[in-house]
Amino acid sequence: MRHVKFLECIQCGKRHEALPAECRCADCQGLLEVLYDYDYVARQFGREELASSREYNLWRYLPLLPVAPTTKRTPLRVGWTPLYHTPALAASIGLETLYVKDDGQNPTGSLKDRAAAVGLAKALEAKAQSVACASTGNAASALAGNAAALGLKAYIFVPERAPLGKLAQLLIFGATVVSVQGSYESALQLSAQAIDSCGWYNHNAAINPYLLEGKKTVSLEICEQLDWRVPDWVVVAVGDGCTIGGAWKGFWDAYHIGLIDRLPKMIGVQAAGSCPISRAFHSGEPLVPMAEDTLADSIAVGAPLNPDKALRAVRHSGGTMVTVTDEEILQAMRHLGQTTGVFAEPAGAAVLAGLQKLLEEGMVGAKESVVLCVTGNGLKDVKNGIVAAGQPLLVPPDINQLLSLLPSTK
Amino acid sequence: MRHVKFLECIQCGKRHEALPAECRCADCQGLLEVLYDYDYVARQFGREELASSREYNLWRYLPLLPVAPTTKRTPLRVGWTPLYHTPALAASIGLETLYVKDDGQNPTGSLKDRAAAVGLAKALEAKAQSVACASTGNAASALAGNAAALGLKAYIFVPERAPLGKLAQLLIFGATVVSVQGSYESALQLSAQAIDSCGWYNHNAAINPYLLEGKKTVSLEICEQLDWRVPDWVVVAVGDGCTIGGAWKGFWDAYHIGLIDRLPKMIGVQAAGSCPISRAFHSGEPLVPMAEDTLADSIAVGAPLNPDKALRAVRHSGGTMVTVTDEEILQAMRHLGQTTGVFAEPAGAAVLAGLQKLLEEGMVGAKESVVLCVTGNGLKDVKNGIVAAGQPLLVPPDINQLLSLLPSTK
Repeated sequence: MRHVKFLECIQCGKRHEALPAECRCADCQGLLEVLYDYDYVARQFGREELASSREYNLWRYLPLLPVAPTTKRTPLRVGWTPLYHTPALAASIGLETLYVKDDGQNPTGSLKDRAAAVGLAKALEAKAQSVACASTGNAASALAGNAAALGLKAYIFVPERAPLGKLAQLLIFGATVVSVQGSYESALQLSAQAIDSCGWYNHNAAINPYLLEGKKTVSLEICEQLDWRVPDWVVVAVGDGCTIGGAWKGFWDAYHIGLIDRLPKMIGVQAAGSCPISRAFHSGEPLVPMAEDTLADSIAVGAPLNPDKALRAVRHSGGTMVTVTDEEILQAMRHLGQTTGVFAEPAGAAVLAGLQKLLEEGMVGAKESVVLCVTGNGLKDVKNGIVAAGQPLLVPPDINQLLSLLPSTK
Repeated sequence: MRHVKFLECIQCGKRHEALPAECRCADCQGLLEVLYDYDYVARQFGREELASSREYNLWRYLPLLPVAPTTKRTPLRVGWTPLYHTPALAASIGLETLYVKDDGQNPTGSLKDRAAAVGLAKALEAKAQSVACASTGNAASALAGNAAALGLKAYIFVPERAPLGKLAQLLIFGATVVSVQGSYESALQLSAQAIDSCGWYNHNAAINPYLLEGKKTVSLEICEQLDWRVPDWVVVAVGDGCTIGGAWKGFWDAYHIGLIDRLPKMIGVQAAGSCPISRAFHSGEPLVPMAEDTLADSIAVGAPLNPDKALRAVRHSGGTMVTVTDEEILQAMRHLGQTTGVFAEPAGAAVLAGLQKLLEEGMVGAKESVVLCVTGNGLKDVKNGIVAAGQPLLVPPDINQLLSLLPSTK
């Protein structure tokens, strides 16, 4: 692949050949990042080529993805999710221009399908027949679903406490779900040993540098769907830190090949009960792990694996981080649903709560344009949907009693 | 609207002006159907116009929809769901050519978004500010979600027994959910009285003829996505009968304006525990209501409101009806997920079970081409997903024990 230069360690700067199964820096165990020959990529495609493309999925950005054109791809329709202009929601929070990127519309219901699409392509380039990750959440279902569609075998390691509801999607997709008696840490360690021992492809998000390249396509789409008018702010929920890192990489790459002429500022939103990256950002001190006390399970990460890429995204872009309480998240789920028809999982709605806070604080101005990334579908977490939803109006089958109880009849 | 001729009663044949709030035949209370001036429509658009359209949602078929071009539309991305070619699934059941139309990828997770998109456009043409329906299922969430996106007020009537999980999505979308103390029948009757009394727009699927026009777009897409090669068979799950009626209307209209040159045969699949339409089809006698004894709640309809359009679809097309047990449905959920990465709700997976039965019986031949319509997302019904899914592999955090337990290490 002429357009991919190498994998660079974000810790020691060492450069490695971009092999499909390369994960951490051999020298310092630091995380790797895919570097492109931007001049070469810029000669391959630009706004015009995209305008004439009929490939309405993430593969429309292939010249900027670390995947060979001949590599087999997931048959599922990943990416090109809708970007909604939401004037009613904007007005309700005192903003002029607001968009919602609904990545819950991906095939398995979250942005993680983007990571799996690229990760599985790399697994195939590495001639793997089996792939593995440790996760109970969106990353696991994205891996299991896309692996099933490609005919690959998926092994998913979960801690014993993982609720069966979350495992149902994985099992339906035919993944071998290994429930490890112990903590998440035990599951992660056993997965690492098994990956080594069995030669499976390592599909853990923070470790595999290619997954982030899939995630970055969300930003390429935002730019293109806005006709290349870059928003002032882009808001992303932060757990491990990979997703905001990926979103930033998308803008960064787009800027460096000339698709866009400026960069947005990134806002990272964490749950107040699990916000080690936000604390590190605001204190300027090294990250200190903390509890995972939030109902927003997709971002309940006390000891994140990828804080570096997250902090870099926020700092380089001139953005900020903000924390929101569970009550604010639930309120945002209702508010988003009622004004836009988008049902977000708690982590997906957290971005609205965070934006409201920054608007109140004056950090985001009323005339600035904002894109909220909704990273997961509310149907993934109906339990919290119920908590957020409120109660129906209970009435006897009598029209007069109904009319007297209705808040308004029009 | 020059292209819409009138509404015709499918019972007495009387023709009515196509007013946006017209529901049943004023003479005989029969169901109405939208009739088009096919010659006029054929002059407006064809394969070429569609090939150059960039509107990748159901509005690309506007010249064949009963909606004025100036009418405001749902901002949600409804329609143009993926049609997957599924060779692995095909081979596993002994078929050569099989496609899966994944309508669970609609914004609220089901084909019903298509009905709501068109129904709400008609509500706006009728100058309604409020819309109402009686339902606990996909139709209600589609109505509530798209109404929220349009800023319309939705009233949803449900029987008291409806589980809160199903109501969560409705409440998140800000619908007023009226929980009626009594049966589904009570809820339906109270909704009818309230609609009369309050002047709300009637958005009940079997009664409002426009909703079916939205549903028909699934077939227009199937034809276009297959490059106008019509499949031999199209398989749809049947509850009330509206969806298969809509799917058939799509092929019928496409045929009559010259988009396709033949019609497929329609297969209607019902759950064995709730199959009054299938019984009527096979016996040739009038429909007899029966119990609603199936886990496939989207098609658990003992006294269907629209058997006529369903029976007409199957009979006119030279198709057939088949019933499947709950066990076969659960097995099909796993089979579909494992071979295609599509997680279907039980009603959505029933079509696969039905197809397998007809293949075994020789009714469908191995060399015939088939499209399965998956009408709802499995995330809508995680409870049955769990039942279908099976169990994870429970292991201690020990690599040797894991290796000894794994069915295979590659």
